[in-house]
Amino acid sequence: MLVTMKQIQQARANLAGVTIPTPLQDSNTFSRLSGNEIYLKTENLQKTGSFKIRGAYNKIVNLSKEEQGKGVVAFSAGNHGAGTAYAAQRLGIRATVVMPENPVPSKKNAIESYGARAIEYGTTSISMYEKAYQLHQEEGLTMVHPFDDHDIIAGQGTIGLELLEELPELDAVIVPVSGGGLISGVAAALKEIKPSIKVIGVNTEGATAMYTSLQHGHPVEVDKVNTIADGLMAKKPGELTFAHTQHYVDDLVLVKEAEIANCVSLLAERAKLVVEPSGAAAMAAMINGHVHLRNKKVAVMVSGGNISFELYQSLIREYNQKNYRGSEVVQ
Amino acid sequence: MLVTMKQIQQARANLAGVTIPTPLQDSNTFSRLSGNEIYLKTENLQKTGSFKIRGAYNKIVNLSKEEQGKGVVAFSAGNHGAGTAYAAQRLGIRATVVMPENPVPSKKNAIESYGARAIEYGTTSISMYEKAYQLHQEEGLTMVHPFDDHDIIAGQGTIGLELLEELPELDAVIVPVSGGGLISGVAAALKEIKPSIKVIGVNTEGATAMYTSLQHGHPVEVDKVNTIADGLMAKKPGELTFAHTQHYVDDLVLVKEAEIANCVSLLAERAKLVVEPSGAAAMAAMINGHVHLRNKKVAVMVSGGNISFELYQSLIREYNQKNYRGSEVVQ
Repeated sequence: MLVTMKQIQQARANLAGVTIPTPLQDSNTFSRLSGNEIYLKTENLQKTGSFKIRGAYNKIVNLSKEEQGKGVVAFSAGNHGAGTAYAAQRLGIRATVVMPENPVPSKKNAIESYGARAIEYGTTSISMYEKAYQLHQEEGLTMVHPFDDHDIIAGQGTIGLELLEELPELDAVIVPVSGGGLISGVAAALKEIKPSIKVIGVNTEGATAMYTSLQHGHPVEVDKVNTIADGLMAKKPGELTFAHTQHYVDDLVLVKEAEIANCVSLLAERAKLVVEPSGAAAMAAMINGHVHLRNKKVAVMVSGGNISFELYQSLIREYNQKNYRGSEVVQ
Repeated sequence: MLVTMKQIQQARANLAGVTIPTPLQDSNTFSRLSGNEIYLKTENLQKTGSFKIRGAYNKIVNLSKEEQGKGVVAFSAGNHGAGTAYAAQRLGIRATVVMPENPVPSKKNAIESYGARAIEYGTTSISMYEKAYQLHQEEGLTMVHPFDDHDIIAGQGTIGLELLEELPELDAVIVPVSGGGLISGVAAALKEIKPSIKVIGVNTEGATAMYTSLQHGHPVEVDKVNTIADGLMAKKPGELTFAHTQHYVDDLVLVKEAEIANCVSLLAERAKLVVEPSGAAAMAAMINGHVHLRNKKVAVMVSGGNISFELYQSLIREYNQKNYRGSEVVQ
């Protein structure tokens, strides 16, 4: 039931020339702030601006010729939609992405710029799922699930292989968690190769599906999610991803919403990276004392950089107000 | 008189383990916008946030033990000061940086966080130079010139070696120009190894020292500079850097101030990189038709990422206003 190392290695071969092995960037500032030796895994610099392309491409390339001929469908307001559209375009396959009604125009533009059909339907993931399922039945489109799929998990797991090649002496990896596809793949890859590595997940206080599920011992749907991190809004982990997380992951910690918001600007100022809130969650946990590690070599997953520029502007304004260092300030 | 390949290779050896070979990041968006195959040389991700550390370290490590014992002095409001301070700290050498009076507090903090003494003096580079020269005479400090020095040029030239290793089939490189240290080193390295490569410099319309000097055939001091790009404010190129530029560089083009300002935000949105205006100048020239290349493999120098966050906020606000895509807009 768990993904195998062979599947992850096969995914690695599938992704060669499609994704880039993103740089692992060391940082004096974040090392000092966390009391560890910090390395940023910069998946915000990945094609389509997030890690999601890895799983989506691996899923689509593994479909049969017949399935590929009929096309694929994904439901997503964000990175998974872009990853699916881009992957399908690379493979010359028709893709449909079901988005919520009145989506952010730039996101719809991104999907369409990758040659996919964008369909607006409903406002919740449940209604989007229903529309996608309808297209699956009516048009024979294969569903590309955002996380609960072996091929998706294996694709995200290729990040684990890269990390160990980039820094074999790695002690720990910190990973943001939503549906759980990313941490499942990364943990499976790392633990099978080097069991001593700690893999620690991060939920935000505003969206605790995996945290709550681990406490209950099975996948639980949380009542609501309310978070600035629009990539971490899953209300329930998958069966598969829950099983991987329960089996492989050492700990799952919570980070505060305000810590994430601040960390977006801090990553811009000190690491020179544009990071979306979901992509800042792991670092925010690391520098605010939620992860209990000292003097370790720690890779922190910077999972994506697709932030709305209206939000980006407002986060930087807040940060400047809080950190105002101008000469007019007397105190 | 020109820097030799041996000096650049020696600089490369000196910098091993100190600077990072910054990633060369390809970009679909900027390729499409410019009609070429574009690769970003991400020196904004370099230690201290700009390429300046390369030259500064190479200069200081080549000093005699006696000179190193007395310490070094640089005059700079920005990246060269940070590069010198960081390099000196790595080598256990005392550094003094002369800054303009009432500097941006964050820049002074950066200098001091690298263990250097920051001295505020005057408001022009001439008065800062005079103060640095006084310290040179009174305290025996060695001046670390921002550009007109063989060791500085050789240090910056290491970028050329990296580029050819990262992409041997490179056709052209676009480089922002101020005093000329960066383009001198990069052009010398590239042209000695692969003479067919085009090296094209970029001045902003607000600061045209090198452009004007090339027209006159010798280094000329321009009356004034007025640019958003605070790393491109040299009023006169050096003798050495002018000689290198005249000898090696194929063309030098001008970019508009507004094009630079817009490109800072475009690099954030599409390449997920925080870039200072000086670091966006080469890309701005490339995507606005100032560089006459088509279907070539072009490396664009993203020279630094140290932007004041007040300025960053205002540039992103302007960009959002211009590119507003929200549903409230009727037209």
